[in-house]
Amino acid sequence: MKNVVVLAVDLGGTNLRMSAVGSDGEIFSHARTSTPKDATPEEFLAVMVGLADECKAAAGTDKSVVAMGIGVPANFNTEGVLTHVTNIPSLTGMNLKADLSAKFGVPVALENDATAATIGENWLGASKDVSDSIMLTLGTGVGGGIIIGNEPFRGIDGTAGRLGHITVEPEGHPCKCGNRGCIEQYASATAIVRMASEAGLDFNTSFEVYQAAQSGNERAVSVYQRSGYYLGITLASLTNALNPEMIVIGGGGAAGWDAFIEPLTAELTARAFHEPVERAKVIRGTLADNAGILGAARSAFLAGS
Amino acid sequence: MKNVVVLAVDLGGTNLRMSAVGSDGEIFSHARTSTPKDATPEEFLAVMVGLADECKAAAGTDKSVVAMGIGVPANFNTEGVLTHVTNIPSLTGMNLKADLSAKFGVPVALENDATAATIGENWLGASKDVSDSIMLTLGTGVGGGIIIGNEPFRGIDGTAGRLGHITVEPEGHPCKCGNRGCIEQYASATAIVRMASEAGLDFNTSFEVYQAAQSGNERAVSVYQRSGYYLGITLASLTNALNPEMIVIGGGGAAGWDAFIEPLTAELTARAFHEPVERAKVIRGTLADNAGILGAARSAFLAGS
Repeated sequence: MKNVVVLAVDLGGTNLRMSAVGSDGEIFSHARTSTPKDATPEEFLAVMVGLADECKAAAGTDKSVVAMGIGVPANFNTEGVLTHVTNIPSLTGMNLKADLSAKFGVPVALENDATAATIGENWLGASKDVSDSIMLTLGTGVGGGIIIGNEPFRGIDGTAGRLGHITVEPEGHPCKCGNRGCIEQYASATAIVRMASEAGLDFNTSFEVYQAAQSGNERAVSVYQRSGYYLGITLASLTNALNPEMIVIGGGGAAGWDAFIEPLTAELTARAFHEPVERAKVIRGTLADNAGILGAARSAFLAGS
Repeated sequence: MKNVVVLAVDLGGTNLRMSAVGSDGEIFSHARTSTPKDATPEEFLAVMVGLADECKAAAGTDKSVVAMGIGVPANFNTEGVLTHVTNIPSLTGMNLKADLSAKFGVPVALENDATAATIGENWLGASKDVSDSIMLTLGTGVGGGIIIGNEPFRGIDGTAGRLGHITVEPEGHPCKCGNRGCIEQYASATAIVRMASEAGLDFNTSFEVYQAAQSGNERAVSVYQRSGYYLGITLASLTNALNPEMIVIGGGGAAGWDAFIEPLTAELTARAFHEPVERAKVIRGTLADNAGILGAARSAFLAGS
């Protein structure tokens, strides 16, 4: 009998990554290409077929693919039609779930990318031992996910969990989502670079700002203090609203942890009710880049069973 | 056979109210007294016994009390020990659930007052036909509740749903909870009177401010516009986070509906993602003062069955 695997996909702003993953979370192979930013739906599917071939070959002929899971930086409706595709606008309107299922002949699980990361951390990572948690992913944007009773909480149409678009500054910086002052505008990697620029610092990546802060550059320190301040306010609101057991912070921007965790904790503790804030452990995701892949795999296994 | 009823209690800032309620929500009797603001736990229990006697006598001798439910403006731990009793600080530390159960010899359901109102509206009121809703109660403070799958969402320790303490203005007006800029500070009846005073208007109640706004007093209109603006921001964040089917606004402050609903809707629509905001119907609670009593009754029946 062949070993059962799923193809798990992370459609990121920079890279499109795929892995063959076993039912216990074992990653058998990795394939990666640059995100095809202007691809038509047909071109996108062709890229996916290429990655899948590569992934299956590397995983070995004793593996049988039973399902596919994909995390996308987008909203979509219950049928699987993409709306608000942040990084590949040319895919807006595509029924990604139906098209992938037709192309690959297997059930497909479609997840928001941050929801996928949240599922991954709950399956095998930071929050695997708790039933109720929330997650923020600090990347190009800020994503979010909510786990209740070990299940992703999706709301009535599947769009719940967009915690990056909680307003923390009523007339704050304009956000791509159409709102102003979303936490995304103060805590994403993009926002860190922008705030550094506003402070007169010329850096290309948030990690450079972080390194400057760790070297004692006061303006870089201030950027991260401001980011931690707004993250703490957001998490205080969420702690009062949802009383979670754990708050996981992941994504590439979590690399700045040492620079933002103190002001974050100070605001969170000062602002939230005593009981829930005593309960909510704030910790860093443990799966790094693989959180989204593993969450997509988890959802794929559920879709394929 | 006697008809089964529960004693349902609403411990408000001004009045302590009790009703005998049947299993279909029929209210057989009402009793009421002024909230005993400095009562010791023993004195409070004595007042409750008096109300219960009155309530049972008025309901008739063919009724049998099987449980009690009480909504309190407080947080409490899973055992039922009160913390943060906003309006009767002298009860802080009391195990209200155990003490009431011992005194009355029936199971007792203890609910946060706004959670009780949310349960009531979901049982028999505005949200009875939807499974996923949130509620804000505009009263002396701003309370909140979350219903998921027709069940109150309580979080890991039962403190979830404190939506009145979501931050909408990072360095805004200090809140009794210890935070600053909670939505409570811009949308409670207390806040309406305060904001009117800041605008140079001398009113004793939010309803007077509302009447002035409806008569065309521009400063009163501005107070309600500001309140609606902040309510809209709060609800946009909650819509993005929770994707609810319905948002219910209740409590005495909902009487100002006509003065705040337009700015509320404008901000909500401008700020939230398109799909969830199209879905979320914002409506006024239909049970008025009885929402909390009926929610407490509902929880009492569940505790007693």
